[in-house]
Amino acid sequence: MQTLKEETNQNSMRKQRIIDCDVHVAPRNADEIRKYMDPYSRSRFSLSGRDLYHHPMNVNRTDSVPPRGGGPGSDPDFLREQLINEYGIDYAILLPRPFSNPLPNANYATAVCSAYNEWQADTWLRDYNHDQVFRGSILISTQDPEGSVKQIERWAAHSQFVQVLSDSGSRAPYGQKMYYPIFEACEHYGLPFAIHAGADGIGINIQPTIGYPTHYIEWATLHSISYQSHLVSLLVEGVFERFPKLKVVLVEGGVAWLPTLLWRLDQMYERYSEEVPWLRRKPSEYMRDHIRLTSQPIERPDKDRELVRMLELMDAENILMFASDYPHWDFDSPKYAFPKLPDRMRERIFFENARELYGLK
Amino acid sequence: MQTLKEETNQNSMRKQRIIDCDVHVAPRNADEIRKYMDPYSRSRFSLSGRDLYHHPMNVNRTDSVPPRGGGPGSDPDFLREQLINEYGIDYAILLPRPFSNPLPNANYATAVCSAYNEWQADTWLRDYNHDQVFRGSILISTQDPEGSVKQIERWAAHSQFVQVLSDSGSRAPYGQKMYYPIFEACEHYGLPFAIHAGADGIGINIQPTIGYPTHYIEWATLHSISYQSHLVSLLVEGVFERFPKLKVVLVEGGVAWLPTLLWRLDQMYERYSEEVPWLRRKPSEYMRDHIRLTSQPIERPDKDRELVRMLELMDAENILMFASDYPHWDFDSPKYAFPKLPDRMRERIFFENARELYGLK
Repeated sequence: MQTLKEETNQNSMRKQRIIDCDVHVAPRNADEIRKYMDPYSRSRFSLSGRDLYHHPMNVNRTDSVPPRGGGPGSDPDFLREQLINEYGIDYAILLPRPFSNPLPNANYATAVCSAYNEWQADTWLRDYNHDQVFRGSILISTQDPEGSVKQIERWAAHSQFVQVLSDSGSRAPYGQKMYYPIFEACEHYGLPFAIHAGADGIGINIQPTIGYPTHYIEWATLHSISYQSHLVSLLVEGVFERFPKLKVVLVEGGVAWLPTLLWRLDQMYERYSEEVPWLRRKPSEYMRDHIRLTSQPIERPDKDRELVRMLELMDAENILMFASDYPHWDFDSPKYAFPKLPDRMRERIFFENARELYGLK
Repeated sequence: MQTLKEETNQNSMRKQRIIDCDVHVAPRNADEIRKYMDPYSRSRFSLSGRDLYHHPMNVNRTDSVPPRGGGPGSDPDFLREQLINEYGIDYAILLPRPFSNPLPNANYATAVCSAYNEWQADTWLRDYNHDQVFRGSILISTQDPEGSVKQIERWAAHSQFVQVLSDSGSRAPYGQKMYYPIFEACEHYGLPFAIHAGADGIGINIQPTIGYPTHYIEWATLHSISYQSHLVSLLVEGVFERFPKLKVVLVEGGVAWLPTLLWRLDQMYERYSEEVPWLRRKPSEYMRDHIRLTSQPIERPDKDRELVRMLELMDAENILMFASDYPHWDFDSPKYAFPKLPDRMRERIFFENARELYGLK
């Protein structure tokens, strides 16, 4: 039964010609569009298609999919087989990667980290850890300093969590003041603050190059820029005067750029020290006491001796720690990642530096 | 004589009480505010105060103010005395710095460059150039590719302009497509494209760190990041396949970071070459053929031999060109800037590389 008004509308509609100016159609599947593309674009295109950069390979080693199901890095027995036993690894520092720093909702970002932390505690650090080979990372989202401090307080007493971890992608350089509550908690509980590459320029994070580069190869190459930026900020802002027991770990940001950056920074410090009167030593001296780097992907020049020389220049013997990046496809094997190293340097890079930092046996 | 309406308004005004909620007062001079400040803030404060970063020293050598008037670098006779004659300089490549890339109005930015170019042609390259020691730079604003091409076309035939110059500060990495008309003109007229530091993150330009650093020392140290970002973009986007005769000059962006960045980039190229199929050689090989760097401020580690080793690693003998940065206070003297160099390297850095690039006698 229609009211008089509805009837009138219908009547007038019948006479009204209509153009709808916003109708969304879509292909049934990606191939309907791909078939009109050149091979280069075809290999990149997907219907969700929101990834900033298309990884040109498989992100993970194709042999890292566990035969009993689940994705790469999800099966502890298979991981033991493929990594721990294969290479005789004594401890594996676990860095789950929820990529929470890009999220605009800070509370939700911390909720994601919180869930990952509970999950680590229940599984990898307890159920899966009969041989005590695994150590965990307390995940935090640096856009939520308050929530991050609560996560650190929640897990600091857990003996199997050995560091606090966030993304190198952020909204500001990590030497700046909004991050100090996080550093205060890290220092208080004796936990290193580690940052890992891969969230730069994504979501709310700053892209630390001169605007967005075009290709994955540029974006990935220039992850090292993010670390240079964070490191200079941490050294210059006086973070290590304020938090003298704090250690910072730079994970997967490259290694060989360090010595010449410190030449440049120390030289600038000679010129501009009056601007930063809270520093009592050269920036490079704070670096040696407070910064540790992980090795993968270690730069490999054509001549091995050039890398060894660079490792000597950066005092790798005291600040570099081995990392494989398992199960990613650009995995650095403990057997082949490095050229032949002096014995003491090798021992410290592969074991001793991390043992000291994380308080392992 | 008042109209009735005005009279009525005045009458009602007399009865109306008024609060004005936006009144701007100001101190008579900066000292009125400075006296309430701590010494650190006092040394920085000015009433205009819009500079992003406060240079902690005099920007120019205090002895570079010409006794006959004008600012540093404005008096050709005094410059001859203090630089050309003092150090026996054969040619001086002039880089006036109007900082036009930060300007949002692209037409005005080019108008500024155009005026500087006319001025160079009338003065330094003619009236002041009786001994032919000066060579000029065609200034362009890269936010206006169309206007930049016109400037290049206007001056390319002038024998005393030897390069095209813009800021390293920009809105995108220089390998990207919007800049190709500029490169096409540079290649066509055989003019190198040079970029100079100092306009990064200012005005419309991207700040190429992970957000804005706090201090001048950080901002200046990390100028090298801008160059790393532009260089990777130029090498990876295939600019030098498309413009095989183009040369690019990186001025005042640091030097020592180059070898290890190329280790990293070449390694990424081994992994991700399928993403950039237009490249036919390793990125480092394009670099050697197409990129030149200027030396100031050359990084000086504690041990001279470490710098010499780095210069060998980067093939400085073929790609590095001396620069003093006169009249800036961190001027590199030809006498003291470098440690003792092998003869051939010294000759090429101080003279031969620039002579070849700029077609000088």
